[in-house]
Amino acid sequence: MPILPSITGPRDLDRLSPDQLNELATEIRSFLIENVARTGGHLGPNLGVVELTIALHRVFSSPDDPIIFDTGHQSYVHKLLTGRQDFSELRARGGLAGYPQRAESPHDVVESSHASSSLSWADGVSRALTATGRADRHVVAVVGDGALTGGMTWEALNNISDDNDRNLVIVVNDNGRSYAPTIGGMSRYLNRVRTAAAYRDLHHRSDRLFRAFGPFGRALFRGVRGGTHGFLSRFTNNAALYSNLDIKYLGPVDGHDIGALQETLQLAKGFGAPVIVHVITEKGRGYQPALDDEADQFHSVGRIDPKTGGSLAKSSGRAWTDVFAEALVDVGARHDDVIAMTAAMLRPTGLAPFAERFPDRVYDVGIAEQHAVASAAGLAFGGLHPVVAIYATFMGRALDQVLMDVGLHKAGVTFVLDRAGVTGPDGPSHHGIWDLSMLQIVPGIRIAAPRDGARLQEVLEEAVSIDDAPTVIRYPKGAAPDEIPAIERLDDGVDVLARDETEDVLLIGIGPFASMALDVAQRLRAQGIGATVIDPRWAIPVQPSIVELAARHRLVITMEDGIRVGGIGTRVRQVLREAGVDTAVDELGVPDAFIDHASREQILEDAGLTASKIAHDVVAQVLGRRVPMARHAGETGAIELPLNPNLR
Amino acid sequence: MPILPSITGPRDLDRLSPDQLNELATEIRSFLIENVARTGGHLGPNLGVVELTIALHRVFSSPDDPIIFDTGHQSYVHKLLTGRQDFSELRARGGLAGYPQRAESPHDVVESSHASSSLSWADGVSRALTATGRADRHVVAVVGDGALTGGMTWEALNNISDDNDRNLVIVVNDNGRSYAPTIGGMSRYLNRVRTAAAYRDLHHRSDRLFRAFGPFGRALFRGVRGGTHGFLSRFTNNAALYSNLDIKYLGPVDGHDIGALQETLQLAKGFGAPVIVHVITEKGRGYQPALDDEADQFHSVGRIDPKTGGSLAKSSGRAWTDVFAEALVDVGARHDDVIAMTAAMLRPTGLAPFAERFPDRVYDVGIAEQHAVASAAGLAFGGLHPVVAIYATFMGRALDQVLMDVGLHKAGVTFVLDRAGVTGPDGPSHHGIWDLSMLQIVPGIRIAAPRDGARLQEVLEEAVSIDDAPTVIRYPKGAAPDEIPAIERLDDGVDVLARDETEDVLLIGIGPFASMALDVAQRLRAQGIGATVIDPRWAIPVQPSIVELAARHRLVITMEDGIRVGGIGTRVRQVLREAGVDTAVDELGVPDAFIDHASREQILEDAGLTASKIAHDVVAQVLGRRVPMARHAGETGAIELPLNPNLR
Repeated sequence: MPILPSITGPRDLDRLSPDQLNELATEIRSFLIENVARTGGHLGPNLGVVELTIALHRVFSSPDDPIIFDTGHQSYVHKLLTGRQDFSELRARGGLAGYPQRAESPHDVVESSHASSSLSWADGVSRALTATGRADRHVVAVVGDGALTGGMTWEALNNISDDNDRNLVIVVNDNGRSYAPTIGGMSRYLNRVRTAAAYRDLHHRSDRLFRAFGPFGRALFRGVRGGTHGFLSRFTNNAALYSNLDIKYLGPVDGHDIGALQETLQLAKGFGAPVIVHVITEKGRGYQPALDDEADQFHSVGRIDPKTGGSLAKSSGRAWTDVFAEALVDVGARHDDVIAMTAAMLRPTGLAPFAERFPDRVYDVGIAEQHAVASAAGLAFGGLHPVVAIYATFMGRALDQVLMDVGLHKAGVTFVLDRAGVTGPDGPSHHGIWDLSMLQIVPGIRIAAPRDGARLQEVLEEAVSIDDAPTVIRYPKGAAPDEIPAIERLDDGVDVLARDETEDVLLIGIGPFASMALDVAQRLRAQGIGATVIDPRWAIPVQPSIVELAARHRLVITMEDGIRVGGIGTRVRQVLREAGVDTAVDELGVPDAFIDHASREQILEDAGLTASKIAHDVVAQVLGRRVPMARHAGETGAIELPLNPNLR
Repeated sequence: MPILPSITGPRDLDRLSPDQLNELATEIRSFLIENVARTGGHLGPNLGVVELTIALHRVFSSPDDPIIFDTGHQSYVHKLLTGRQDFSELRARGGLAGYPQRAESPHDVVESSHASSSLSWADGVSRALTATGRADRHVVAVVGDGALTGGMTWEALNNISDDNDRNLVIVVNDNGRSYAPTIGGMSRYLNRVRTAAAYRDLHHRSDRLFRAFGPFGRALFRGVRGGTHGFLSRFTNNAALYSNLDIKYLGPVDGHDIGALQETLQLAKGFGAPVIVHVITEKGRGYQPALDDEADQFHSVGRIDPKTGGSLAKSSGRAWTDVFAEALVDVGARHDDVIAMTAAMLRPTGLAPFAERFPDRVYDVGIAEQHAVASAAGLAFGGLHPVVAIYATFMGRALDQVLMDVGLHKAGVTFVLDRAGVTGPDGPSHHGIWDLSMLQIVPGIRIAAPRDGARLQEVLEEAVSIDDAPTVIRYPKGAAPDEIPAIERLDDGVDVLARDETEDVLLIGIGPFASMALDVAQRLRAQGIGATVIDPRWAIPVQPSIVELAARHRLVITMEDGIRVGGIGTRVRQVLREAGVDTAVDELGVPDAFIDHASREQILEDAGLTASKIAHDVVAQVLGRRVPMARHAGETGAIELPLNPNLR
């Protein structure tokens, strides 16, 4: 009889023997490999935390003891143990989310996929428990070693150490990697700790795994390990280590030994003060294809053959990321001053080929977007031109630095934002839909949204030649479309993609929506309505030819793969009004909502962002049967899920 | 013969004897007290760094060796030594800026007043120097101990330690305070270090001064102090201290001993690797009224009597901050779940009375906005209602957390933004003009801008009662106006302030601009144009009555003390268009520019944000002589200064 189906909640774990727990771990691994192979998802991270998650739910009483996962992609096992075992529609509409989601379960707390926030959450929740007479409860944060490179975790530790009278357990899930091996100065400390005699046999793969932390983590851990309470797990015996830090430390402990984990977590639970439990895990554990994948141990996969790990995804054309990767190498060869920067995502952002060709011209700063952007301003001051490659959704982590360090100082820094717009299956915190609105508030900034790969190459070349202002290039996840030719490039760089004799409607298609604008125009033409379609290429600043064109049309439709609120459309309309052009403007874009996981196509459809819907509304409007456009948020109910309430 | 007037640049220091250097320090202190007393400015911090700045310019060769000041309010001495000795118009239009400013001097690098960024800048500049064959130059960052609580500094140190082959000197100016005493877990380490026997006589005021750092800083410093190179300043003899960290450490050194400082900095200069120089200074040094000021040692003063330190500022009514301070105590007494949070600015943000009344309900997290906001989400999850008090200009430091931690989780957190809008003399990085645009992109957020003190009390009460969405209250620097009565409050909470029989123009005055809207209306009335004036109180979401009112008017004018780009006006217009209301909307607000220091009045005048200018343009428009409104940025040339170019 398999055990997993009998687990309806964490307390069902209580009746299992040690052997049964190990058997359960084996079943979970098989389940994960089989199911994630079918749907795609975060495989490697979850294979690494099977035993850890079992031990956590044995020792703590979720949801009374909230368990907070940092960057919740490692919550699959947690889902399985808390009554969620239907993985058939993982990350698809109506199926389980790929991250914790309160609407699914009271066992979930933090839904965001942005790293390094869990210690702050844990600090807040545990202070609240103490303040409200529930001090007997425990709060657990599970954080990866990579996330410790983020400044937020240091801010949190500084504060956690300031209030010692509470039950707060920080589990450092140390696999020596964030997406890729954890780097930066922090990457050296645990290398030494973990290869020391006492831990040498924890894992065989020490050369690859044992690379987390570094001088500052080192100081931290060295300090905390010898805290005055002096608890040391059975793996350590560091009598010579130092005292004086106020956050106690247990470990390192083998993250695949359920008994050792329970013992250590039990000690931590009894502390009555914040304590760090240092757990060594192996990403991709138990699945040879993942272990063999040097690049990222199957961090996140599409559909795969579970036996071989080979991809089953159909190729749908050349990815935007790959177009950028190649273009950057090309630009780098011609511009000596161009250097590339990433926040722990060298490969996902497409910097690997550049790094191979110009190894001295790439800086990976760790999960540290603030530092990436401010130091880029310093690099520009010193005469280089940094290209900072980052996912659009993470740009909010460094808005102040774009504004105050780059923008105010007119620094020539180029931001390349991958995964911009509606991304789909990763849910609300992975959509890159806020970047245009938040970045256009930076005075002097220039923002390009290429419509195809050729345009990406083109604007990248233009961007690295601008040394007195921040530049942004943003493009979506997935495949770049085939070249979309322009019929004319206007003097100010605006591309005209289609033009009719009658100038009824001006369609401004931003980036990937340029092709949709062409589709809309065709449908309008069929109804006898003339349309002009343009791609501004550089969406910000709004170019003069747009004003001239708008003045000649009866209606302007802006279409952007970002939120309507404060978007490019609002800027177009503002510039027109300033110029005395009062042609009506409809600003189409993503609704003002947190958008639940679903396919990109489903989400765009819900939001009314399809050529047929737009054409239908435009026709009605031009013919005088006015239909308010772009008022789709909340209409379908599919965009946003309710939350479970807060902790009770 | 006084020495100071003979110093035209740093190299003039070279010819001075040790006695003359001390004499110069005395002259500079007198100069600062006399001049800043006349103009107002950052007095305490600059009195603390007189000797340090002299020593820096003796040892390093600015601008070839760039000196980067963190939170540049301590750059007055640097200005005096680099050819800028006319302080008569300090922080006034045309006079010296209160922060470094590249347009003033090639000796200035970073202009932003936002803390904790200097190490990132230094990292970037030094990497650039190395990459461009100028590795012989040195980069110096001067950072306060308070700024080390910011996560960015940890991100930077992690990266700095990763590249040891460069000339980078980090001077920690440790006065045990940021604005107020540095707090958090970090606040305990140096207490011990500095009170230890070896340093006991550095200062007499150890009980008050010696409170910086804490466990993590402690671990850091303990580690770095014993770096393998083993340089120790003459003040330390810590043979027992630890090794292993890659950033070397010198100190602590007496920050008021020019000889000791030069000796230590010279050592640091010769290192050939990143090194931290730990300097102990006394804020307000040499000026008894500042030393006697327990609260903040005259961190920033208005006009004062130089002899007594007594304020000469004319009281212009009750400050917004004080209204909030009192209202929060009141709200706190009636709402047990309300707690207050600050990022190292308890007093400046008005939390002191609340802290006195409810000492257990205030959290000061240090200069750590990211942590403040994310932990507030955790506190809300745990059942409390945090009120996060912060200056508007610093909100960009935590936008991602407002979006992903608070907004996505529908957390009941109230943000109270002081110094919102055009602030004036502190220059571009202190204007709080971006908050409305950046925060309104958060789905579900509600933003209030009270027009007077009574409204502030009112919306605060409303905000702490909203437990399923982030709320924001923002108000400007300075005095709140006398009560501005409404003639009617509409059902949705919108206040009608004035109404004429003919409904020509709808004036929407946001926050402090409500009174200007009333003034505009009066001027219109004199021209026979009817106006309705409303204060939405809650600017976001746009209330339904605004749509109804707009439909009945010929023109809508929105007026906000924030940038026009992506501002409230754009949202009003978007909502109107969605509702099928096509009344023309002019969005008035602050230009899309970095606005140089000047008085608030001067800046608003330049931007065309005066009742007479607005009324004039409205009249022309209503009478058909259309004048494009709100197109003022760049027209006067007074808004934005050019920069000096980057490092050569």
